[in-house]
Amino acid sequence: MDSYVIQVNGHGDHAPVLDVHLSTNGNSLSLGKVKGRKPRWAVRASEMSKKTFNPVRAIVDSMKVEPNPKKAMISLSLGKTLLFFNFPKGDPTVFGNLPTNDEVTQAMKEVLDSGRYNGYAPSVGKLICSSCEEAVAAYYNCPEAPLQAQDVILTSGCSQAIELALAVLANPGQNILVPRPGFSLYKTLALSMGIEVKLYNLLPEKSWEIDLKHLESLVDEKTACLIVNNPSNPCGSVFSKSHLHKILAVASRQCVPILADEIYGDMVFADCKYEPIATLSTNVPILSCGGLAKRWLVPGWRMGWILIHDRRDIFGNEIRDGLLRLSQRILGPCTIVQGALEHILDRTPPEFYHNTLSILKSNADLCYAALSAIPGLQPVQPAGAMYLMVGIEMEHFPEFENDVEFTERLISEQSVFCLPATCFEYPNFFRVVITVPEEMILEACSRIQEFCEMHYQGAEGAQDMECDK
Amino acid sequence: MDSYVIQVNGHGDHAPVLDVHLSTNGNSLSLGKVKGRKPRWAVRASEMSKKTFNPVRAIVDSMKVEPNPKKAMISLSLGKTLLFFNFPKGDPTVFGNLPTNDEVTQAMKEVLDSGRYNGYAPSVGKLICSSCEEAVAAYYNCPEAPLQAQDVILTSGCSQAIELALAVLANPGQNILVPRPGFSLYKTLALSMGIEVKLYNLLPEKSWEIDLKHLESLVDEKTACLIVNNPSNPCGSVFSKSHLHKILAVASRQCVPILADEIYGDMVFADCKYEPIATLSTNVPILSCGGLAKRWLVPGWRMGWILIHDRRDIFGNEIRDGLLRLSQRILGPCTIVQGALEHILDRTPPEFYHNTLSILKSNADLCYAALSAIPGLQPVQPAGAMYLMVGIEMEHFPEFENDVEFTERLISEQSVFCLPATCFEYPNFFRVVITVPEEMILEACSRIQEFCEMHYQGAEGAQDMECDK
Repeated sequence: MDSYVIQVNGHGDHAPVLDVHLSTNGNSLSLGKVKGRKPRWAVRASEMSKKTFNPVRAIVDSMKVEPNPKKAMISLSLGKTLLFFNFPKGDPTVFGNLPTNDEVTQAMKEVLDSGRYNGYAPSVGKLICSSCEEAVAAYYNCPEAPLQAQDVILTSGCSQAIELALAVLANPGQNILVPRPGFSLYKTLALSMGIEVKLYNLLPEKSWEIDLKHLESLVDEKTACLIVNNPSNPCGSVFSKSHLHKILAVASRQCVPILADEIYGDMVFADCKYEPIATLSTNVPILSCGGLAKRWLVPGWRMGWILIHDRRDIFGNEIRDGLLRLSQRILGPCTIVQGALEHILDRTPPEFYHNTLSILKSNADLCYAALSAIPGLQPVQPAGAMYLMVGIEMEHFPEFENDVEFTERLISEQSVFCLPATCFEYPNFFRVVITVPEEMILEACSRIQEFCEMHYQGAEGAQDMECDK
Repeated sequence: MDSYVIQVNGHGDHAPVLDVHLSTNGNSLSLGKVKGRKPRWAVRASEMSKKTFNPVRAIVDSMKVEPNPKKAMISLSLGKTLLFFNFPKGDPTVFGNLPTNDEVTQAMKEVLDSGRYNGYAPSVGKLICSSCEEAVAAYYNCPEAPLQAQDVILTSGCSQAIELALAVLANPGQNILVPRPGFSLYKTLALSMGIEVKLYNLLPEKSWEIDLKHLESLVDEKTACLIVNNPSNPCGSVFSKSHLHKILAVASRQCVPILADEIYGDMVFADCKYEPIATLSTNVPILSCGGLAKRWLVPGWRMGWILIHDRRDIFGNEIRDGLLRLSQRILGPCTIVQGALEHILDRTPPEFYHNTLSILKSNADLCYAALSAIPGLQPVQPAGAMYLMVGIEMEHFPEFENDVEFTERLISEQSVFCLPATCFEYPNFFRVVITVPEEMILEACSRIQEFCEMHYQGAEGAQDMECDK
């Protein structure tokens, strides 16, 4: 039995010795797959990988994006270059004007020096929780929404938090409710898992509040969860307490759990207050996804978390255990960041947060004021996060088919790149990222003005163009 | 239309005003899910989360693990405590005897100080590759298996590398070939994705070489890939060039791509040579999974990668694009580690690697010698990685049903914890981790000896016990 020898590259030293009941022709083995004939290579990518589709990439890849060589490029979009296309998250670190705090960096260096955080993080369970989960729980714990270490699942960034929350709540064939306009990752992840996406409308004329009637009309017996993104990417909107109560009332009435994407939590301007949705409900089970990325200005560090709010024990152990099991597949975020987390949360000075927000608020105001004065544009004033949505009165720009063409030409003529809101399932808007330095915002706005003035057609002009077509 | 008002917690200020063609009773809305009656909460964890099952956890959770209070606990298993149960990866950092190199720590601190790596890493594509992928490609590039930056996919640790490689290669309903004994994560991930697992045997009497005939007999038309783990967890074995050639011949003949888990690559003892499997083949497409965890002794940092070897263009763009898309779901490993990677790969002094290996080799030799002298145990000499498998001649230990009971009693009597190899689908063996300090290994081996001498039954004694039953 042990004398079986196989041929190596067709030049084995011995003839094959087989103990199977097949006659072989001396060259090819007739086992398994072959059934008498030579198999051929046919390696195909899985269905799941094909279904993992980033619409932003598809849209932006299709754009003609040759900037005007006479003008330096300004990206009010995502990141460093035109070719920098992950999901449409704003990266506040790109221009160096928003560094993280020294305490954050110092915490990491102390952890590195200690040498104590190079190993695997302990697996979280009923009996053991690391100080890292405890630190997050302590930071977000409050009487209205109490949290303990076992309510915290650490993830590789907020993206994985959303992925795990969806993966534990929904089966293929179920559906989830997703905001329109909204962050494209929700749909990408859902479709890759065979989960259907139903888009509910946000209302620009109501500062992007949810169209609650539309939302509720979408619920059916296959609805696995409702995604609420507050503060919002791409809108920069922040829901009021009263609006959040109304959203919770829908969830409660329809018995739909909430996946709260609160990665921009606490990033609201001074005249506004951020309310974690879990603090307003006693019965709706909520998975709140967050992380260090935005508030601490370190998106690349990939430190995220899920906070489990389940005061009526509706999720129960089943959802908790499912999340734990799923999170152990890739063993959590980098342990250096985990080791530094308590220090980061506890010792980052309040001035740091205030300073970031005052820069964002000032940029938002500048940008809003400048764009409001431009004929044909309708910016919506933001209240938080790092974005601002701008409506395009397409009837006044008859040269352009849609927002994609509008933003495409804005690049080729003015070397200014804004993401067309078709990327967020919301045509005829574009999104501006307000983390760029003030002088760049001003320069970009002035170029956008030049561009719009060049292409704007008043009511009559527009009609003429329409007739000429 | 805008006058729609919903009730908040059953105490709305206004009666609902609806524009739907339904009569309501003034209290409950009859939209969507409800169809006239109040829905009830019924949130269940998804099938996928339930299928994500860690057998090690199940086995170890079922063990009675009260150590002997008179003896200090020594774990030759996973990590710091008995309750430390992720997947059964050895953590070399637990006892502080194997620190990473100062250059590795220094690289991280320089990156932190630079402030240039806090943002999202650029997404990799055909047109843009970061220096991080270039560094990995340059490090592993060789004439027999050339690599460029676009052949490298960065992942959150080697676990995610394996997850993505499986996810891109196999559809639900297909099968993969997995070593027995083998690392349990393969099966956990596969089953969670609906992929069937077929176990092929490794042969302890041949230093854990693959039973090639058995392997080939398992291939069928649904086989999506062959997982080859070299050097091996849990065996500590290292395949010879000639054996790797034979494995490649099977893959080539059966047209099955290889997923090479080479996380312990280069971790072989001086009298042995590690051959990356891709350097030995010109036609079999291979995804090689690796990372910083083991060789650089920083498993918690979660820096992994997939190297795409596809010199006959069998994977083609489809598999590459699929991997890129999948890797963008969670946006890669921590950027601080990414920023430090080139420095880590280029400047870690060779003495560091040599020193680690000489400690491992010395521990392996000590452990092998000590265990070989114990009646009823059959250790298999390792050639690399961080493990050693020990056969239990169960017929000489009639008190114990199996390896789980054997190791359970070893805890309660001697406070020594070794993982029963049932965790690796290989009963009647146990696994020893050889990264613990020398004096602990010696103490543990002497306790194991005491334990075995206490319970060993010679041929006659064993028969007596059998008759008494």
